[in-house]
Amino acid sequence: MRKRIAFDMDEVMADLVSELLERYNERFEDSIQPNQLVTQKLQDLRPHHTKEIYEILQEPGFFRGLAVMEDAVEVMKELDEHYELFIATAAMEVPTCFNEKYEWLREHFPFLTPQNFVFCGDKSIIHADYLVDDHVSKLEGFTGEGILYTAFHNHGEDRFTRVDHWKDIRNFFLPVHANT
Amino acid sequence: MRKRIAFDMDEVMADLVSELLERYNERFEDSIQPNQLVTQKLQDLRPHHTKEIYEILQEPGFFRGLAVMEDAVEVMKELDEHYELFIATAAMEVPTCFNEKYEWLREHFPFLTPQNFVFCGDKSIIHADYLVDDHVSKLEGFTGEGILYTAFHNHGEDRFTRVDHWKDIRNFFLPVHANT
Repeated sequence: MRKRIAFDMDEVMADLVSELLERYNERFEDSIQPNQLVTQKLQDLRPHHTKEIYEILQEPGFFRGLAVMEDAVEVMKELDEHYELFIATAAMEVPTCFNEKYEWLREHFPFLTPQNFVFCGDKSIIHADYLVDDHVSKLEGFTGEGILYTAFHNHGEDRFTRVDHWKDIRNFFLPVHANT
Repeated sequence: MRKRIAFDMDEVMADLVSELLERYNERFEDSIQPNQLVTQKLQDLRPHHTKEIYEILQEPGFFRGLAVMEDAVEVMKELDEHYELFIATAAMEVPTCFNEKYEWLREHFPFLTPQNFVFCGDKSIIHADYLVDDHVSKLEGFTGEGILYTAFHNHGEDRFTRVDHWKDIRNFFLPVHANT
């Protein structure tokens, strides 16, 4: 029986931060760069705009237009031959994103079955062998092995196996295929 | 630590069949009654309308307007005091229903946290102690204890503990509270 991996979407499969910065900089005539968010998040850098930052996430089309993380499609295709793959994304905080996330997955990862898409909140509900996520809080409640995808907000965390990009994910799950 | 129960929505919390029959009968000037669906489903009774029946499920507002099953709110409130409750609904076959299901849950079960809503397909991904569902196929893949909610399409099935209505659910999960 194949082992099961569940993948978070935002900041693992989809580049949420780039889109957020682009929209934020345009709206407030600012010029924040991604490298300024290595150890802090946008809300910490611009606390007076916390409400507005959440509003940007709710703008129609925000999630639909996110760029795919580098190598994500290629590595996911390879993993699909050896593992049972699920997508587990926190969607309940921004309910407007349901359809956009569904369409985004169908467009960029058409080889994945929608039967394996999970839109949830608390990820302790996920029954899988592995969960790849950028949020430590999600991994803490998970009963399988948590894999931490590096992001600005998990800097310095060392309780989980860490992956910095999709090539690391390939090396972890498909070691014999590494560097081929 | 509280035990965790996951509940299916359609035909467990929400009365899908009544709404489907009402819309079907009106559209095709038919007069099918719920008791005709005790041992067969609408698609079996009217196979030449299989496509149209699926279209009805996709009509805007279909899921938003479903009636709540009798006693469901009251019993869920009681269970909420003793268990950790999750909603696990198959939403990927009719992606248009995401928002409607979310709004329906918020309206009728405002005491449940959206963090515990799960919109999925394959329910083997659900990590819980119990799953209450009317579909045998969903219970088969579930790793906890499956509780079968009686519906026309699970007639004669005897592999799972069966509940016929929400009072049965109360009696099963809160035996000391039964008949109070």
